[in-house]
Amino acid sequence: MKTLFYPRSVMVVGVSNAPVNLGKSIVQNLDRFKFQGPVYCVGKDGGYLGDRIIYRTIDDVDAVPDLAVFLIPARYIPEAIDTCGRKGTRYAVIETAGFTEYGDDGRDLERQLCQAARKWNMRFVGPNCISIINLENGLVLPFVPFNPEGTKQGHISLAAQSGGVIVDAVRLLSLENLGFNKLISMGNKLDLNENNFLEFLISDPGSHVIGLYLENIVDGRRLMNGAYQSDKPIIVLKGNIADSSREIAQFHTAALAGDDAVADGAFRQAGIIRVSSMQEMIDNFKIFSLPPMRGPRLGLLCRSGGQGVMLADAVYRHGLSLSQFSDDFFAFVTKEVRAGVIRLTNPLDLGDIFNLQTHIEIMEKALQEKDVDGLVFSHAYVTDAEVEASKKLIVAARNLSLTYGKPVVVTIIPRKKEWFSMKEAADFPVYSEADCAIRAVSNSFCHFTNRSLPGWSGKKIPLREKTENDGARLSARLLGSGEAYDLLASAGLPVADYRIVGDAEEGVKAAGEIGYPVAAKVAVPAILHKTEEQGVKLNIADPKELKRVIDDMSGDEFMIQKMAAPGREVIIGGRRDNEFGPVILFGMGGIFVEVMKDVAIRVAPIDNDDAERMIADTESRRLLDGIRGQAPADMPALKWCLVTISRLLFDHPEIVNLDINPMIVGDDRMGCVIVDAKIEVIEVPQD
Amino acid sequence: MKTLFYPRSVMVVGVSNAPVNLGKSIVQNLDRFKFQGPVYCVGKDGGYLGDRIIYRTIDDVDAVPDLAVFLIPARYIPEAIDTCGRKGTRYAVIETAGFTEYGDDGRDLERQLCQAARKWNMRFVGPNCISIINLENGLVLPFVPFNPEGTKQGHISLAAQSGGVIVDAVRLLSLENLGFNKLISMGNKLDLNENNFLEFLISDPGSHVIGLYLENIVDGRRLMNGAYQSDKPIIVLKGNIADSSREIAQFHTAALAGDDAVADGAFRQAGIIRVSSMQEMIDNFKIFSLPPMRGPRLGLLCRSGGQGVMLADAVYRHGLSLSQFSDDFFAFVTKEVRAGVIRLTNPLDLGDIFNLQTHIEIMEKALQEKDVDGLVFSHAYVTDAEVEASKKLIVAARNLSLTYGKPVVVTIIPRKKEWFSMKEAADFPVYSEADCAIRAVSNSFCHFTNRSLPGWSGKKIPLREKTENDGARLSARLLGSGEAYDLLASAGLPVADYRIVGDAEEGVKAAGEIGYPVAAKVAVPAILHKTEEQGVKLNIADPKELKRVIDDMSGDEFMIQKMAAPGREVIIGGRRDNEFGPVILFGMGGIFVEVMKDVAIRVAPIDNDDAERMIADTESRRLLDGIRGQAPADMPALKWCLVTISRLLFDHPEIVNLDINPMIVGDDRMGCVIVDAKIEVIEVPQD
Repeated sequence: MKTLFYPRSVMVVGVSNAPVNLGKSIVQNLDRFKFQGPVYCVGKDGGYLGDRIIYRTIDDVDAVPDLAVFLIPARYIPEAIDTCGRKGTRYAVIETAGFTEYGDDGRDLERQLCQAARKWNMRFVGPNCISIINLENGLVLPFVPFNPEGTKQGHISLAAQSGGVIVDAVRLLSLENLGFNKLISMGNKLDLNENNFLEFLISDPGSHVIGLYLENIVDGRRLMNGAYQSDKPIIVLKGNIADSSREIAQFHTAALAGDDAVADGAFRQAGIIRVSSMQEMIDNFKIFSLPPMRGPRLGLLCRSGGQGVMLADAVYRHGLSLSQFSDDFFAFVTKEVRAGVIRLTNPLDLGDIFNLQTHIEIMEKALQEKDVDGLVFSHAYVTDAEVEASKKLIVAARNLSLTYGKPVVVTIIPRKKEWFSMKEAADFPVYSEADCAIRAVSNSFCHFTNRSLPGWSGKKIPLREKTENDGARLSARLLGSGEAYDLLASAGLPVADYRIVGDAEEGVKAAGEIGYPVAAKVAVPAILHKTEEQGVKLNIADPKELKRVIDDMSGDEFMIQKMAAPGREVIIGGRRDNEFGPVILFGMGGIFVEVMKDVAIRVAPIDNDDAERMIADTESRRLLDGIRGQAPADMPALKWCLVTISRLLFDHPEIVNLDINPMIVGDDRMGCVIVDAKIEVIEVPQD
Repeated sequence: MKTLFYPRSVMVVGVSNAPVNLGKSIVQNLDRFKFQGPVYCVGKDGGYLGDRIIYRTIDDVDAVPDLAVFLIPARYIPEAIDTCGRKGTRYAVIETAGFTEYGDDGRDLERQLCQAARKWNMRFVGPNCISIINLENGLVLPFVPFNPEGTKQGHISLAAQSGGVIVDAVRLLSLENLGFNKLISMGNKLDLNENNFLEFLISDPGSHVIGLYLENIVDGRRLMNGAYQSDKPIIVLKGNIADSSREIAQFHTAALAGDDAVADGAFRQAGIIRVSSMQEMIDNFKIFSLPPMRGPRLGLLCRSGGQGVMLADAVYRHGLSLSQFSDDFFAFVTKEVRAGVIRLTNPLDLGDIFNLQTHIEIMEKALQEKDVDGLVFSHAYVTDAEVEASKKLIVAARNLSLTYGKPVVVTIIPRKKEWFSMKEAADFPVYSEADCAIRAVSNSFCHFTNRSLPGWSGKKIPLREKTENDGARLSARLLGSGEAYDLLASAGLPVADYRIVGDAEEGVKAAGEIGYPVAAKVAVPAILHKTEEQGVKLNIADPKELKRVIDDMSGDEFMIQKMAAPGREVIIGGRRDNEFGPVILFGMGGIFVEVMKDVAIRVAPIDNDDAERMIADTESRRLLDGIRGQAPADMPALKWCLVTISRLLFDHPEIVNLDINPMIVGDDRMGCVIVDAKIEVIEVPQD
């Protein structure tokens, strides 16, 4: 991969001298950004581009370029790749559009393209992308013009599916005086995809913070493993949140664990920070340019009462807490200012102190406080006289942040005339707004906390084979109740004792073995939401009642099942997701899940810690603690069941849908018991 | 009030010639903004400020100024106000700080200040504020310097408690090329408060959109009535969201209906738009500068696939829907472009059309579509060549929006060098980000929808007398169970039949009258969460069991109560809020309320429509529809109970806390029945 971003030489295919030529634009970008290696131009009309000869064919180039960039019509691409491969070039960027995004012809072309690349062991970016940028060596390959003035080198790297997002990102970064390192437009991701780029960026010394914009996820598990292995923050903006095409689901889990909900659960699981807009991504890029927030406590300094209120509100809203300033600190502040005019609280309003140098001293003193994990300074200035002092304050904030290893977040709304120069006062991000800033601080804390969890760094999620009929539902079938229970029991899961019987007489015999009270159910897999149906009768106390019940039911087979002792009902579900493979869902009781949609989702298999955090993700978990004088639930047993079911889901790729609804969780040390389960499987092809 | 904003003459008290003098700064603001009337300067040292004489005392001024502005030490304020009042001036702005915000001395001064003002029937803004601005007549009274270049006249007006917020607002408005009309810094709100200003701004022809920044709410009911009477959008940023001081609550309602939750419910009730940051307020100012969104359907045009995905996601996230473009529209688009390269969907990606004039034509065609209530155009440009065309596109978007009476929202991330000039291309707001833009569009739709509800415009909420011991809990007492039930029954509410008895024998007699099954409860008001206690036994089937139960209970009095038929449990609560007076709370079942905090709050009394929307605000309302084959609940009866309880709360100001928990709502036409209630009252002083 390194060759892709650090090629010694580049060949651009599709260059001409015409007034509007996108290939030419690529070469001009390379020149403007002072790419040092040779740049070979290829274009069918030949001629010259400045001093450079335009070769008529790839074969005419009398060198083996490390990297080839293509902007020629799609139909010529497969052959051109073949030619390059034969020549010895191993990396390509295909900017050309016109593949699958335009229908079946494109699909054929993609197949040919892949064949040609595979033949020569070539790797490529795209097609249908605006390509890659590496500011370290001036490798600026997009066909849209970029300018060195609008770009600053730094340590942020971003890979995006959409070229438009890359263009926007360059602009947003430039507007905020943020430097970046590598940008990648991934396009159709036909060969290299987010996982390749993520893994490269994690290993890349120039990239300290990684952003991803994704519209689909090629292999969610690999993505998660990237995050597990990385101390670098990974910030993802995932599009396509609406599950518009979701079929009407027979399974609760399928309805609740939509594609976006699964991705959300997976991101939480792997400590990936999810944002919902490019602006929020920029806010996070800023915070991760600062030292980490190692605890939840923020010191707040401001220059007006309103700022203080908004800062404190944001701290509350984003789940952080206020530092307790020490008497020592307050004594220092009091000494600095006219006695009595300042209220000694956090937030601390410094509006009555006009000397900004004093603000800097108070900032430093605050950073020395044990109870301060990070500092927010909401600055404001009104006169020309304060402009230079404000810039000095920004420089000081940067230096203090580095010295004390704590984030110092400055918010400021500059005037129009200083809008950019204030942001450029130092190599140090400033925010305009407290709420956005503190939301980002909270992510920094969360990132640091995750990475400090015991066992986090060794974590990974096993990959899975993608099968050809992934997502196909054609051969899906519901398991019979007995089959489903047996499958669960085979994994050691606590299934309520049951028998399948053909008539009342057999039923009474079976119930005698199991022990009353029992439930009787018509043993037909297709019956959904059984309690709504006539085919279920619970709490049957004796043989006489059981006989009457079975005689009243219509069906060929009946299930007689031991009634579970009362306890909390939970639902545990599973589904095979196209992007993440088997996933597990947890929620409290039927109604909490159905009405409140209060569930947590994780990628299977999970470990005990995952199970614990998963339960903690639901609001209704409090029911398990034992409210209203109830005993607490048997949490170890519940977690064990979650872990075991998640392993079952992973070990049995044929399971496409699973609803265990409900499982009864008993009081402390009383264990769990599964009283109803529905499983849908597909036949896995034998090969 | 008009005199305050349109005075013929102004007197500034506290002016000197010293290099740093804040009074001088006020006079300079008036001059810079070309205030036309006479400006009199008063300052104890006398002398001249430019051509103006500085009078040594107020009495020296040989005129009666319409408005007096004060920036002299707090201790001189009461006397100065008295002098002004005697002179005949009726409006004052007191910018001086140093009143209650600095302790008890300040409180005394405030009392004297109010006395002096009342004596002469003077109204004043502040103290502790940076005062008011009216751009229509150049009345710019803050002591911080403002500049005409940084301000643009328009139709947005804003009142804020914090002066810092006003300074920020001026800056944010200027950065976004938004014009404003009047700005008010309210300070301590000792006399004039948000209600006075809101009512004035509603009647003010120059103000079309009204923003409020509030840290506390003086009279929430008056605020709501302002909103009810206004077609102008009212956008509120309310600070102090954390209920840090909330006592440990004996009542569920008290715990759930914190001050901020009450304000939130009240804002929803009155159609006030609530935002959580100044940036979000600006986003709303922008959208309300455009024609209203009269339906939920948005047409989305963009120039890249990524933009389209983010637009569609934002539409989904903010509860709007996608327009269905007609075949006619698509035919038009196809004719305009190379056939086949554009996917005819909504969002419509115009990335392959390079002529921006064509974009404008497509925009117009889209606005002609019946299914389009509003349009979002995510623009992007990369080269210098597109700058002017982009500005023309913004101008065209403005004109089209006005012509078709539908909002046209343009998003664009300009380059640094055009950052401001692009925003200033027209008197027309542009956004940088789809998500913020569409969130604001959704507010426009919501505002329009509220104002179109039948009966909305005549709506108001009755005011209430503020009593001296508002919020005092000293004399609070819990009503006995019998007392509480009787109070509810007196309003016609359906209370489960009950008797208070002294022993088992009386109990059995009472149960005979009521009919079995019954519940027995120890009749002690202090027992909370009764089901947790030993003092409650439900579902007693016969006299024998009842006798045994009562004999086992310890207590002097017992309540025998008719068991209600099964149904859905709801909680209805009430509380007297300091800012809004009596409020009512609704939520489903004990556990839904306690665990999920899924409740809705309104200011009492409510009408039937309020009750309906209140129920609709809860997620768990679906339980009332009848899920899993249950019959739907008796909704008319539930709404009637909510309305009646809300009236009871309003008519009985002595009720400080009320928990009806639970009330059982029967199936359709089966009515409701209150089975448990707890009421806390205070003694209302007789005068």
